[in-house]
Amino acid sequence: MSVTAAKGFTAAGIAAGIKENGNPDLALVVNTGPRRAAAGVFTSNRVKAAPVLWSEQVLKSGQVSAVVLNSGGANACTGPKGFQDTHATAEKAAEVLGRGAIEVAVCSTGLIGVLLPMDKLLPGLEQAAAALSEHGGEKAAIAIKTTDTVHKTSVVTKDGWTVGGMAKGAGMLAPGLATMLVVLTTDADLDDETLDKALRAATKVTFDRVDSDGCMSTNDTVLLLSSGSSGITPAYEEFAEAVRQVCDDLGQQLIRDAEGASKDIKVEVINAATEDDAVEVGRSIARNNLLKCAIHGEDPNWGRVLSAIGTTRAAFEPDRLNVAINGVWVCKNGGVGEDREKVDMRYREVHIVADLAAGSETATIWTNDLTADYVHENSAYSS
Amino acid sequence: MSVTAAKGFTAAGIAAGIKENGNPDLALVVNTGPRRAAAGVFTSNRVKAAPVLWSEQVLKSGQVSAVVLNSGGANACTGPKGFQDTHATAEKAAEVLGRGAIEVAVCSTGLIGVLLPMDKLLPGLEQAAAALSEHGGEKAAIAIKTTDTVHKTSVVTKDGWTVGGMAKGAGMLAPGLATMLVVLTTDADLDDETLDKALRAATKVTFDRVDSDGCMSTNDTVLLLSSGSSGITPAYEEFAEAVRQVCDDLGQQLIRDAEGASKDIKVEVINAATEDDAVEVGRSIARNNLLKCAIHGEDPNWGRVLSAIGTTRAAFEPDRLNVAINGVWVCKNGGVGEDREKVDMRYREVHIVADLAAGSETATIWTNDLTADYVHENSAYSS
Repeated sequence: MSVTAAKGFTAAGIAAGIKENGNPDLALVVNTGPRRAAAGVFTSNRVKAAPVLWSEQVLKSGQVSAVVLNSGGANACTGPKGFQDTHATAEKAAEVLGRGAIEVAVCSTGLIGVLLPMDKLLPGLEQAAAALSEHGGEKAAIAIKTTDTVHKTSVVTKDGWTVGGMAKGAGMLAPGLATMLVVLTTDADLDDETLDKALRAATKVTFDRVDSDGCMSTNDTVLLLSSGSSGITPAYEEFAEAVRQVCDDLGQQLIRDAEGASKDIKVEVINAATEDDAVEVGRSIARNNLLKCAIHGEDPNWGRVLSAIGTTRAAFEPDRLNVAINGVWVCKNGGVGEDREKVDMRYREVHIVADLAAGSETATIWTNDLTADYVHENSAYSS
Repeated sequence: MSVTAAKGFTAAGIAAGIKENGNPDLALVVNTGPRRAAAGVFTSNRVKAAPVLWSEQVLKSGQVSAVVLNSGGANACTGPKGFQDTHATAEKAAEVLGRGAIEVAVCSTGLIGVLLPMDKLLPGLEQAAAALSEHGGEKAAIAIKTTDTVHKTSVVTKDGWTVGGMAKGAGMLAPGLATMLVVLTTDADLDDETLDKALRAATKVTFDRVDSDGCMSTNDTVLLLSSGSSGITPAYEEFAEAVRQVCDDLGQQLIRDAEGASKDIKVEVINAATEDDAVEVGRSIARNNLLKCAIHGEDPNWGRVLSAIGTTRAAFEPDRLNVAINGVWVCKNGGVGEDREKVDMRYREVHIVADLAAGSETATIWTNDLTADYVHENSAYSS
């Protein structure tokens, strides 16, 4: 499953000793098919980790033979030495796999500002190459976990072709890509431009709308690789929809595993004048710490929703706003609506609908509640 | 002291029964001097409470005779009835004081979306008027507290004239005005245009740069009233500096009393290309939940500072950024700097310096850490 569900890919996940606790920390995904087309989307943070700077160069050719992913260190803010280490990683992987280094993408995740233990990572690549298997997708997904409590994979199989993938991410989930590493693979026979178009369309409405804590990482990477091994070239729309489904599924898994969260909050903005307005309002609500605390306390505090809407530039009139929480319209026309006591908030999923009454566009942003566990997990010495 | 430090003002603070726990909840400030000039700055939230909408109208004349302030209810998102209640409050105050209602500003703070108990508030105004005193400033400051653990006052006395004031605010502290009510008074003899200029200049570099939790309220109000009772008209620069000092002092008191906080964080951005860049970067750092958790854990996690800087549009090169935490330059040229073990974070105040190496402008934003206590305080049923 995972990245090896599609034909033409092998993968491995091993413990190279990068993590001090001995857990798996190095994954390898290799394209063994006739095609090596690929597309990538990266963090929009201007402080980019060395592996992001490297992989952006790799993707310019539209060709990726292999992806090296390590947990246990982000290799971000590590200066010229950090970039050299990423380059050496690609060179070593190319050597053991018999490929060109410029076709090897590299992804890293973990603590910022610490150099990777290359004396562990480089030998680990030999071990990982030896472990490559058509059934290695699960192990690869496990090896990229950091504070993730579960590994995340998803597969959509259509008529003779498949899109599958894996993701890691549990904190620093933010807009302009949730913070995470994702590798998607397909055996559909498509060129890099088509992959790029489908990937950007999918991430825009999935990962870009997952906003756990408003913190954008330095390492976000989503890659989509095609082996062409199915020999089938599906219609673009059908392929794009399959990619969107896998991205949506993985995005949901990220939210459900967000650090310290006890609630998954679906913020649906309706009747906006434009889709951009809907996204801006959704993000503003999703990032409001006071509201996130209220949801944690199972308090349908619609005043904090209105307060968040009010900070945006979206088109709306305050006295026409409506807000529903778990199906109860607690705010009507900018004031008190149905009885808030009717709102049942016992379950993990909470659904907030913000009706701007200004048009017909809509957008959904996913976030989590703010909990004492989030604080504890992120205030422990350097995670 | 407080709003009665300057000559020509009386004040009172009483318990009208608006708060169910019987604590003081109604304050009155009355200008008894020859002048009734005033200026006001209000929340930039587009969802404005009824008292804000009313007081904005009052301030258009540049004249304020009295200010009514209540805690125990924000009268926000309360529709036409809420606005009628504010209007009735001003009418009643005008009646008992023998002034015009259009010269009575009204401020409310407390829960959003609940109507005020007018059967308690209106009789309370008679009681407050009877209690007015030239020594009532302290009681007024106490009556406007919500989750504040202490009342906040500040006074600057110059050569024959005084600027004094009171503030409330402990949560929902955010940009474009920290969430709060502030009344400043002076006996300096100045017209409303001069007051307005000095007040806007002061709030821009004080309250606007206090950002406890990134949440902007619907009720923020800062008023500056002149009684002219000193008969002295100071030079503008001297007066403006006194107003800035009082605002700065009150802003610091707000940060030190922020809900659940264990650290006060001074984020100083230096060597920015523009002041706007410095403010944007400062805000981004001040709002980063992961960094705020790290500071709570006394972890000098400079990677999260860089990550926050990277989300801005400010002019900078990632490999020229420097970050100091409590005097130790833990990040130099975008990478590892001095030993992070040298950073002493045992004290309440934490000083972060972000050097953009892109110019010579600077700005300071104050914020707090993110704590389990903040979550507890704000997840309790409706605060």
